[in-house]
Amino acid sequence: MSKYREIYDYIKNEIVTGQVGYGGRLPSVRKASALFSVSRTTVQSAYFALSEDGYIISEPQSGYYVSYKSPAAQGEIGKKEAAKILFDLSGTRADPESFDFREWQRHMRYALRQTDRLLSYGEPQGEAQLREAVSQYILEKRNVAAGPERIVIGAGVQSLLHVLCALTRERGSVSFPDRSFVQGSALFESYGFDVRYRFKDADIIYVSPSHMTRWGDVMPNRRRIELVRHSAARGSLVIEDDYESDFQYNSRPAPSLYALSGGENVVYIGSFSRLLLPSIRISFMVLTPRLARLYAENIRKFSQTAGKTEQLALCSYIRSGRLMAQIRKTRRFYTAKAKIFCGILKKRLAGCKIELSENLLQVILEAPFSGRAEDFEKSGIRLFVEKYENGRITLVLSPSAVCQGSLEDAANALHGVLKL
Amino acid sequence: MSKYREIYDYIKNEIVTGQVGYGGRLPSVRKASALFSVSRTTVQSAYFALSEDGYIISEPQSGYYVSYKSPAAQGEIGKKEAAKILFDLSGTRADPESFDFREWQRHMRYALRQTDRLLSYGEPQGEAQLREAVSQYILEKRNVAAGPERIVIGAGVQSLLHVLCALTRERGSVSFPDRSFVQGSALFESYGFDVRYRFKDADIIYVSPSHMTRWGDVMPNRRRIELVRHSAARGSLVIEDDYESDFQYNSRPAPSLYALSGGENVVYIGSFSRLLLPSIRISFMVLTPRLARLYAENIRKFSQTAGKTEQLALCSYIRSGRLMAQIRKTRRFYTAKAKIFCGILKKRLAGCKIELSENLLQVILEAPFSGRAEDFEKSGIRLFVEKYENGRITLVLSPSAVCQGSLEDAANALHGVLKL
Repeated sequence: MSKYREIYDYIKNEIVTGQVGYGGRLPSVRKASALFSVSRTTVQSAYFALSEDGYIISEPQSGYYVSYKSPAAQGEIGKKEAAKILFDLSGTRADPESFDFREWQRHMRYALRQTDRLLSYGEPQGEAQLREAVSQYILEKRNVAAGPERIVIGAGVQSLLHVLCALTRERGSVSFPDRSFVQGSALFESYGFDVRYRFKDADIIYVSPSHMTRWGDVMPNRRRIELVRHSAARGSLVIEDDYESDFQYNSRPAPSLYALSGGENVVYIGSFSRLLLPSIRISFMVLTPRLARLYAENIRKFSQTAGKTEQLALCSYIRSGRLMAQIRKTRRFYTAKAKIFCGILKKRLAGCKIELSENLLQVILEAPFSGRAEDFEKSGIRLFVEKYENGRITLVLSPSAVCQGSLEDAANALHGVLKL
Repeated sequence: MSKYREIYDYIKNEIVTGQVGYGGRLPSVRKASALFSVSRTTVQSAYFALSEDGYIISEPQSGYYVSYKSPAAQGEIGKKEAAKILFDLSGTRADPESFDFREWQRHMRYALRQTDRLLSYGEPQGEAQLREAVSQYILEKRNVAAGPERIVIGAGVQSLLHVLCALTRERGSVSFPDRSFVQGSALFESYGFDVRYRFKDADIIYVSPSHMTRWGDVMPNRRRIELVRHSAARGSLVIEDDYESDFQYNSRPAPSLYALSGGENVVYIGSFSRLLLPSIRISFMVLTPRLARLYAENIRKFSQTAGKTEQLALCSYIRSGRLMAQIRKTRRFYTAKAKIFCGILKKRLAGCKIELSENLLQVILEAPFSGRAEDFEKSGIRLFVEKYENGRITLVLSPSAVCQGSLEDAANALHGVLKL
């Protein structure tokens, strides 16, 4: 074993076992070189590698500090920030194992090095490079054929809907599938739209065909065709939020409304938060040719919300081919976990109605219950209560953020609250 | 000189002189170790250092590649992206010398290492840590006293105005100082507001007291007090966009409207794009107590637009004390440059009316002219044409993005287009 590796392992061990805690200072290179009787170069290499691997951080003119938090320390921080959630079944967190952080960090570092580009404001529509990459990606993936000039980037779906609302103000009514997407319905409302639910004759129809309800229902192909025909005949605009289409279990996912319609009256929206990291706030929409012209004419009115650094990093990530690999990995990973969790629950909570959602990502549980809906959160379980009436409760459980080894414990915790 | 340093310098020289071009592959560690007759550890240290310094990038399972672009190559890329702008006097770009990229990259790397936090969506209002840091910063800097619960983070001023529009829909009219802030006026318009200009009896009054016009006028204290009194008496809401207050030349900048009013009817807005990098899209607003309550009640309707990674990095940056140092540095740097440029122009363009703007960041030039306004851009000069009539043209010139050594050339280029 090389000297450098020896020092790396020694310090890493000190850190991981908590001998040197979070924020603790490491000996200077000079000191460590004397301490370990090696050259300064060797110490430097070890420090570089430790910093690359996230164990330490170098503060210029100051020294090296431990940046690694032991799981115990992390627990402590978590406690302060919120009620301690032991099992997050709400589906709003990602499993660390599903995402290769090192890979993402590499693309971010690459973006941060493009200093010349970072010195100026971004393009209002989103970086041209990224729009180009997205254009190829959605063609390949969802048969959505649209050039980069029709793609608008934004920080989350809400930012994109702001642009859309400003472009479609003459349209009076908008329909949502249900009341769960408050950020969308409230926004249309504040722009003066008449917000309706499941109203097929609305001027704008918002749907997420791959995740229609919290239950994860997928819109059948027959209904997709109906919707496309009806809206084309009426001249209404369909907003297709293709949320979670990548997670469909069929080898061939259902066709996008955009592809079925030819794209004349469908605005296609996609997002990377679920595939990569919830904290990466980059979404995109494909405007119809008419709306794209309108957007171009009014471009001075809009500013870009997505950060330039993350846009450049995402572009590099897509181009490297990692996105497709990540999709395959995440799909396998999350559907397998939901299946396992469903099996565990069926064994542990015999007598309840338990089934896997249509998109294979969630478990729907219906059980007799006499407690209060808040009891779950109080017991450290975060989840969605879909319905609670007449002594029966329906829960939507997304195990994606719970590591596989803890699924058993999550089932036990649920069992405890349900008092079965 | 150590072996490691020798290799570092050798390769750096190869890259900088263009012997190995952008994207070019370096020999593998094994190969280089044989080539230079040194240990692999030594090569590794040199590669680590080169990658830390932005000359090369490591692609896992592939190798090391040159990530440095020679100025010549950068020029080529710039050409493709836009008409070749030789002198950007529009004030929308930052001078690379004004910002310490290494420092920012360090804070970003630190944020990217907080993997546990990046696995979840951000807080809709913005990360609590950052709001805490901003709260302290604005108290110290502008005497704006407000706790983090009243601060909302967003990606740019427009994102914040979206929130504000949704919260103040009952207010019918809004006043802007002039027509230059299209992104603001168009937004209020699309929410159904009656948009007026310089209308002191509007329900909402938008002002940027430290940069009232493109000319960089600063609102005098007397008018600040008048505005605060008048709006309080009428019950109208003032939106104070404190854009560029940090660049004021007085040792004591004019007091914020927020501080003058006590904050009951003033929403204070600030941004970091100008101080740090235009590509960092993080702004914040301080809501009035009443609006903050309304926001909290409606929080489910809003999503966060600013990226979590950049929020965490900015928080760490502010806490390290770097922000204050950066403000002082940028102010000195930009005002000195504007002054020098003004002097050069006065010498080179004798006979024109040339003066420094009130905020000391821009030069206002008035000259006889018979060409077309586009001639400047065609000659590689980007600038704002404030007025062009009766054979006289008024230009607003922000030399901030032009490096000091090129100010002379910029003046010559202007001289050429003006045909004096």
